This record gives sequence, structure tokens and C-alpha cells, in this order.
Amino acid sequence: MRQAGRYLPEYRRLREKAGSFLKLCCTPELAAEVTLQPVRRFGFDAAIVFADILLVPYALGQKVDYVDGDGPQLTPPIGVGEIGYLRDHCDASVLSPVMETIGRVRQQLAPEVALLGFCGAPWTVATYMVAGSGSLDHGKAKLFAYRDPPRFAELIGLIEQASIEYLADQLSAGADAVQLFDTWSGVLAPEEFERWCVAPVARIVAGVRARIPAAKFIGFPRGAGASLMRYAEHVAVDAIGLDWTLDRSFAQKVQERRPVQGNLDPHVLLAGGDALDRAVDAVLAAFAARPFIFNLGHGILPDTPIAHVERMVARVRGA
Amino acid sequence: MRQAGRYLPEYRRLREKAGSFLKLCCTPELAAEVTLQPVRRFGFDAAIVFADILLVPYALGQKVDYVDGDGPQLTPPIGVGEIGYLRDHCDASVLSPVMETIGRVRQQLAPEVALLGFCGAPWTVATYMVAGSGSLDHGKAKLFAYRDPPRFAELIGLIEQASIEYLADQLSAGADAVQLFDTWSGVLAPEEFERWCVAPVARIVAGVRARIPAAKFIGFPRGAGASLMRYAEHVAVDAIGLDWTLDRSFAQKVQERRPVQGNLDPHVLLAGGDALDRAVDAVLAAFAARPFIFNLGHGILPDTPIAHVERMVARVRGA
Repeated sequence: MRQAGRYLPEYRRLREKAGSFLKLCCTPELAAEVTLQPVRRFGFDAAIVFADILLVPYALGQKVDYVDGDGPQLTPPIGVGEIGYLRDHCDASVLSPVMETIGRVRQQLAPEVALLGFCGAPWTVATYMVAGSGSLDHGKAKLFAYRDPPRFAELIGLIEQASIEYLADQLSAGADAVQLFDTWSGVLAPEEFERWCVAPVARIVAGVRARIPAAKFIGFPRGAGASLMRYAEHVAVDAIGLDWTLDRSFAQKVQERRPVQGNLDPHVLLAGGDALDRAVDAVLAAFAARPFIFNLGHGILPDTPIAHVERMVARVRGA
Repeated sequence: MRQAGRYLPEYRRLREKAGSFLKLCCTPELAAEVTLQPVRRFGFDAAIVFADILLVPYALGQKVDYVDGDGPQLTPPIGVGEIGYLRDHCDASVLSPVMETIGRVRQQLAPEVALLGFCGAPWTVATYMVAGSGSLDHGKAKLFAYRDPPRFAELIGLIEQASIEYLADQLSAGADAVQLFDTWSGVLAPEEFERWCVAPVARIVAGVRARIPAAKFIGFPRGAGASLMRYAEHVAVDAIGLDWTLDRSFAQKVQERRPVQGNLDPHVLLAGGDALDRAVDAVLAAFAARPFIFNLGHGILPDTPIAHVERMVARVRGA
């Protein structure tokens, strides 16, 4: 439940104190506190480090601003001509506060509570880097990839290398496992999904394991739909995130291959009531017989009432 | 290739002449001309009537405005309290220009060129009616459905009834087949997909066939992913639209059950060049051995160069 804190009053107070979102991500004392808040409140079995998938573009040399209401702005946007700019401006040291956050959280967290690190998967990170912002159909990155595959592969390769170092550092700093969020993998044609989602993440997993053989991964190609089986077959992650849309009998076939996590619709948590109870039961009925981590199928929605989260946790724990 | 005309200069000239988009849809002489333009230019095997999925909300009593840049605005937005408003304000006669358009097109079209009618599927239409506009995650309609399923079922039922009459009228006016576009079916959890996408479209198909037993349907639940098989099993359409993201081996299993159409990524048509040739070949290689209609996996993008469409048509015809 990535950045679960955003709907909590204790988070919003800290957010105001920090000033900018980026500052909050890069101030270990505050980021550690935000990471711990939902665990303290709900007694979750795992914490996920408070950070952002756009820290990697920042480390690669883009200026990253979070403009309230407008979403993130990345400058310069990366086209065919800006790969060199990235090579000249990258600075991996901007990521070091995240490792300090992980160290602080690990010290304060009970040993039986897992700590997860994460980064964005290369395709998803590239969609922001190329558009210079969020975008609806990720058309700019798709066009770049179609029109100049070698240069786009170069950009993906830069993100891959930065991600390998970043995830290995997170594991060394105390993360028990790391997640790879491919939030926008669902917009690609099948060959493109293979090339820009499956292959890069497979290489990242191999690259991190070359340094840390016991490294544990959760891969989450959101919206992959029927392509999720291909991902499960070819990416050696330890578990696979399920979004909330996936057909259950298909998802169970994926689960025969790898442990799964996720699946609850964030909107049903927002809605609450009987619909929430039924949805929790449906997820448990489908997946609890095999290795499964109960979780949402995407980030929690900001207006979600705390009472709904409590109701969900009680129902899962009581099942 | 829905509303293929939007990227053509001859369309843009007519659009200016008509004034508003709604006026263009509801002026048979102009709508017929727009419908015929791409067939004349490219010699396509089928034409699709120029209309819009939001004509049904308009007939159900919402005011529908197309605001340039901002997308459609529907007033009042439909919540639990506005179902009665719809019952008081609906007026099916606003759809009659579409039937006149179909009659005009059929007269001018060569007999071997198929003419397709269409409407939006109830879930997709409801997302606009509830939000009062387009929306990113269709959260308002999802929440309505989770919080008050009986009232949401009532709204879906109103759309269903209007769609049955509308599609039957289109077929009577001269359409050879009708399409049901469920553009936003991909945002629903599996039980919700079953309830708000599969079941309503199955009822529409049955309802139209009760009047016109030979009625032909193409169902297009975009983004359904692995749930597409369930749709293929339970909705008695004559063909199924494939978006551009679907895993090919999965799509082939769907094709074993029903003919399919679509699949080319609109962005690769915009990109052109070698990528376009390879993508056309991949689609044909996957599907041409069984009943298949070559088409895009979603609407054509407005900036698509005409030369790319010509290149695609030549490659498909030459294959």
C-alpha cells in the first residue's frame, strides 16, 4: 500500500512542515516518520519506505518539481537529443537520503515487520521523463520508442543501471525486499510490453542479484492484463502485484507460478460498507489458499476514511 | 476505426461549417458526408456512422455540451437523486437524425461496403453521466455502483433500454451491424465487470434480437485484458474488438471462440515507418488465419498523417 500515509492527518501535518514533497522524500528524519505512521496506527505486517518513483529521473539529471494540482514537472523533457544531457548531469548521490531513511526505519521497526524499498520500473519512469510530466496515454514515450528504438533503449538502459544501484543500496541499507512499480505497463502493445517492461525488469532483477544473491523482489506491472502471465514466466521476481481489475481465474493461474499480492480495488476501500466486506472476502477466497500478501491493487485514495482501513484490517485478520 | 474522419482536412472543413460537434452529429446531410469521407479517400471495406456515444445521455435528458479543449460536459451529473430527473426529461426523438444519416449513407454507399452503427455500452455511458464529464479513474461511477448497487442498476437499466431501441432503429435504418463500445470497461474489478459490462451488453444483444433476430453485433470492451474471455463466453456478439494491448496468444484463444477485429496500436499508425510495417505484419500473422477484421485497437489519433493510413491499407491489401 504505497505511501499509505497520504490520507492520515499525522502525515498531512508533517507534509506541511516539510514544505515541498521532494524535501519530505529527501529528509530522512521526516521520511522515516511518514514510513512508520501507518504501521503504528494499523499494525501492518510491512512498511514501505516513503519515497517517489521520480527520484531516479532526479538522480539522472532532470529537474523534478511537484506542482500542487498539476502533478510533477520534469525538465528538460527527454527526447532523442537529450540522452547526452542526462549523461552529463546525473548524480546518484541525491538518492542517498533514501538509504538513510531505510536505516532509520529499520532501527525503529519491530524485527518481525518487513520493510520494503521500491523504484519505478524503467518504462513507467521513462513515460514521465519523456513527457516532462504525467500524461494521459503516454503517447510521447510510445512514439519515441516506435520512432527510434535504439535511442529509447539507451534511455531505458540508463534508468536500468540507476535502478540496479539504487535497489541494491536499499537492500544493503536494510530493506527486506524491493518492489518494481510499472504503473503504466498497460498502455503498450504486446511486443512493446515484452521489450520495455519484461526485459528491463528481468535485467534489473539479475543485476541486483549479481551483487546481492538473496535479493527479494515484488514486480507490479499494473494493467498488464493477460500479459501478466508472460511477465510471471520471464521475470524472476519472488512475488507479483495484482491490480484490482484482473480476472480471478486468470490471476489464480499466475499465482500457481509465483506468489501474488494486492488485488483489492482502492475505490471499494473508499466506498466502505457491505461492498468493502464482500470485496475483501472475494480477494481472500480467490488467493488465500496459496502464498498471498493481502494488499490494495493500487495506491490508497487520499479521501479514504481511516475507519474503512480499520474495518478492512479487522476483516482480513479475522478471516 | 471510429470517426476516422477527424484527421482529414475535408472533415475539419465540414466541422467548421457545422459550428458545434453535436450539431454535426445531428445534421444528417453533414454527418452522412463525414461518414463517407474516409471510405471515398481510402476505399475501406466498411463505414461507421458519424455520431457520438453521448447522444444516448442527451436522449435520456442530460444537457450535453462539447467544450473545445475541456471535453464533454453533461448536466446535471447523475447521482442517486437524479434518476427521477432522467425519467422526466428523456426524449428519444433527439436520436432520429442518426437514423436519417444511416439512410443517406446507405443510399450513397456501394452495396458491398458494410455500414456500421454503434452506441456506447452502458457502463461507459454511465461513467460520463455520473461524472458530468470525462474523468481519469471513473471514480464517481465506481463509487455510485459500490455504494448503491440497486440505484446504479436502475441507471444502467435506463441506458440499456434506450440502447436497445437506438440500435434496433439503426439496424432498421440500414446499418449492417452495430458496435457496442465499452471504452472504460478496464477500470472495474472482476465482479463489477461481470455485473456492469458483461450482463448489460448481453441483455442489449438479446433485447435487439428480440426485435430483429438477424441483428449482428461487435462488442468492444476496451482494456478488459484477461476478462475478455469471460465476455467472449457470455455475450453473444458476432465479433469482438481487440484493443492494442492484448497478449496475442490470449487473443488467439478469444478468436477460437468468436471472430475478432482491431488490435493495431493507434500510436504506431501515428509513428509510421518500419515500426508501422512490423506492427501491421504482427497483427496479420496473429489473426489472419481465422475470421478477422483488420482495424485499429482504438480510435485514430488526430495528428495521424494520411500517408501512414495509405501505407497501412496498402500493406494489409498486399498481404
